[in-house]
Amino acid sequence: MSDSGESASAIRAIDIIRKKRDGHELSPSEIARLVDGYTHGEIPDYQVSAWLMAALLRGLTRAETAALTDSMLHSGQVLDLSEFPAAKVDKHSTGGVGDKTSLVLAPVAAAGGLVVPMISGRGLGHTGGTLDKLESIPGFRVDLPIARFREVLRACGCSMIGQTNEIAPADRKFYSLRDVTGTVESPFLICASIMSKKLAEGVDALVLDVKTGSGAFMKTEEDAAFLADLMVETGQRMGKKMVALITDMDQPLGLRVGNALEVEECIEILRGKGPEDLRQLCLELAAWMLHLGGRAATVAQGRHLADEIIGSGQALEKFRKMVELQGGDPHAIDDLNRLPQAQRSIDVLSPKSGFVSTIQCEDVGTACVVLGGGREKKEDSVDPAVGIVLHKKVADRVAAGESLCTLHYNSEARAAQAKHLLEKSYQIADALPPPKRLVHRIIPATTSN
Amino acid sequence: MSDSGESASAIRAIDIIRKKRDGHELSPSEIARLVDGYTHGEIPDYQVSAWLMAALLRGLTRAETAALTDSMLHSGQVLDLSEFPAAKVDKHSTGGVGDKTSLVLAPVAAAGGLVVPMISGRGLGHTGGTLDKLESIPGFRVDLPIARFREVLRACGCSMIGQTNEIAPADRKFYSLRDVTGTVESPFLICASIMSKKLAEGVDALVLDVKTGSGAFMKTEEDAAFLADLMVETGQRMGKKMVALITDMDQPLGLRVGNALEVEECIEILRGKGPEDLRQLCLELAAWMLHLGGRAATVAQGRHLADEIIGSGQALEKFRKMVELQGGDPHAIDDLNRLPQAQRSIDVLSPKSGFVSTIQCEDVGTACVVLGGGREKKEDSVDPAVGIVLHKKVADRVAAGESLCTLHYNSEARAAQAKHLLEKSYQIADALPPPKRLVHRIIPATTSN
Repeated sequence: MSDSGESASAIRAIDIIRKKRDGHELSPSEIARLVDGYTHGEIPDYQVSAWLMAALLRGLTRAETAALTDSMLHSGQVLDLSEFPAAKVDKHSTGGVGDKTSLVLAPVAAAGGLVVPMISGRGLGHTGGTLDKLESIPGFRVDLPIARFREVLRACGCSMIGQTNEIAPADRKFYSLRDVTGTVESPFLICASIMSKKLAEGVDALVLDVKTGSGAFMKTEEDAAFLADLMVETGQRMGKKMVALITDMDQPLGLRVGNALEVEECIEILRGKGPEDLRQLCLELAAWMLHLGGRAATVAQGRHLADEIIGSGQALEKFRKMVELQGGDPHAIDDLNRLPQAQRSIDVLSPKSGFVSTIQCEDVGTACVVLGGGREKKEDSVDPAVGIVLHKKVADRVAAGESLCTLHYNSEARAAQAKHLLEKSYQIADALPPPKRLVHRIIPATTSN
Repeated sequence: MSDSGESASAIRAIDIIRKKRDGHELSPSEIARLVDGYTHGEIPDYQVSAWLMAALLRGLTRAETAALTDSMLHSGQVLDLSEFPAAKVDKHSTGGVGDKTSLVLAPVAAAGGLVVPMISGRGLGHTGGTLDKLESIPGFRVDLPIARFREVLRACGCSMIGQTNEIAPADRKFYSLRDVTGTVESPFLICASIMSKKLAEGVDALVLDVKTGSGAFMKTEEDAAFLADLMVETGQRMGKKMVALITDMDQPLGLRVGNALEVEECIEILRGKGPEDLRQLCLELAAWMLHLGGRAATVAQGRHLADEIIGSGQALEKFRKMVELQGGDPHAIDDLNRLPQAQRSIDVLSPKSGFVSTIQCEDVGTACVVLGGGREKKEDSVDPAVGIVLHKKVADRVAAGESLCTLHYNSEARAAQAKHLLEKSYQIADALPPPKRLVHRIIPATTSN
């Protein structure tokens, strides 16, 4: 075993590890050396994993986090979307259960005159993924090459695709190593991973939806705010307009969890209907996209504009057009029966009368995975039809024997396991629980609202 | 990249990493899984290096340190020396400059009726190594197989050899990885590395000489005491009699630094002569070996016995016999000209009159390495003849132009560089520096003296 970092550059990998281990700040060139050396196979896994653990336990400064993001960003292609005169704006969520706003936001923002070049991920663990939801629309392709992605953007102002090999290849290598070395859970490394991929889209502004609560990766509002602040500052250092909304994920968002079920709910929202919490959050995030993208002078005006765009049917038309351009069946939007349907369903009944006090949100997400609607390992395939339709949410009154939710499934064994999870996820109390806000905090705090 | 620890055992490597990362105590079976899995190639480098960094930054408990030591110890052969009725005792030093006591202690303790199965290391960095010193005796072999090691022990009560592949193979693998991942400097990992190798010798008692000061790895007495305490408790948990002496390494020990030069000085000590600091430390360490080995009721009696053994010439005879049994030239002991001699010498003169206030000890060790007497990299070969003879030590009076030390060398270019280091290592002051003790502390503190 030799210090492979030594020959390739004047900065030795071992010295970069030691410096972080001892709590000192690394220079941008030291961080660039680490990222480039690892990406090009000059620095071995075992040195990078020691560095990652030191970075997790010692933390990174804001300057280090920005340098790491920048090095990972420039490990691959950064899209140049200067051909589009309109502002390029995206939204990124840290992931949750029933978290389906992207499918609403991209067409709303595009209908509002923005360009939305959205590169998304797949579901992992208990959270769903935008790509899996889109693929439940028959024929929809998320693996477009960059050239076709541009064509769709030109034609309708928004396009939604998956990661490509050209975008931030360093992040893929770092993420695989973090996954097996216990170094996923660092806000600094999470920030660099998310921001390097999002900034590679060539956006001018980015709205972050940082989830907190029992269904989020960040269980506490403090952890969520720390990550949000880090990502906002990192983006700002790179000249991007940034905002982060810390939003509630203590119960599922909307009423539907599962790929095709969530597409249905998004179409409802685009028709001006659908559950109020999802509708409110979509309006709020769309308002920020329109405001940062220069289409609304204030967030309040952005909210009003988004509401108008949905009400006029323009957003639904944008969505239909995008589906068609990406190979999907546009008739599925008018006839939801064309979306995959599960064969059977079963209800979870309330054991007593009272008010829903809590819904353990991660358990609902896990129940959907158990049904086959998500994946535990990256290699798993996903059943687009299965999922859960909630009839009762927190603060709803319920009678003994009334249905709390309906499971849509294709396997009895899986349904039994998922039902058990859902039964214990619902808590029924005698009293109405205290009200909870959907948006907990906006970062930066001084941002006009 | 997959979690390779998963299939081989119920305990997954990733969970062991996460537990240490989060500051929790690992069970002995978790630590054994890590050590065994790595030694047998089931857990990859990149997971172990992440764990090592977590262990360095989070620390290990005493129970974890003992479990790590035990797992590394049992990764190879543990010598069974029960054929010898006498107590088996060894001494280990953490390394210093001019630190040559092993060559005196093994024959003294053997002459006192103990069995000394000493497995030593080579010099690395600025510190010398016992094996390099022994190999400066023409013909001396340190690479004896274990069977021959036993024969030498049977014939003369002491034998001094190098690491073999049978002893603690896990430590070799861990050490190579620590060396390139910035995880050498953890007292817990140092303790496990040292103790696993020393306990594999099958000793009943172990005397530790933990060096502190400018020529030691542990620069402060607090760091030295922390490591000493850790090693003592680890040995005691494994049923061994243990003591650690924290001794001074703020200037070289004795007057000679360099392989053959140090052998000469040891022979002087075994003849009842030689510099007083070296003689005192040898008596002190020998006293503890004899006391813990049951040959002296008190340390004071051990000191008296060691003095007698040296005075009677028995220790020199033991040394001569060991040299002969290990293939060395026994006549070199009586005729020191048979040891390697450097071709040239040059003096370092005092720039002014006064008292030697400090000798930067690491610089003296580095000067010896520069002359060719030590190695910067493991692959380097060593020149046995070169080195430094000190004429003045701390608190000695010196006149302007008087020789502080003499360099013995074989290369002019190397001599010039070494001379420069030595010139700046000596500080001359007007006043006598405060006196300093040779033995700073004894651990455990309650041990009778």
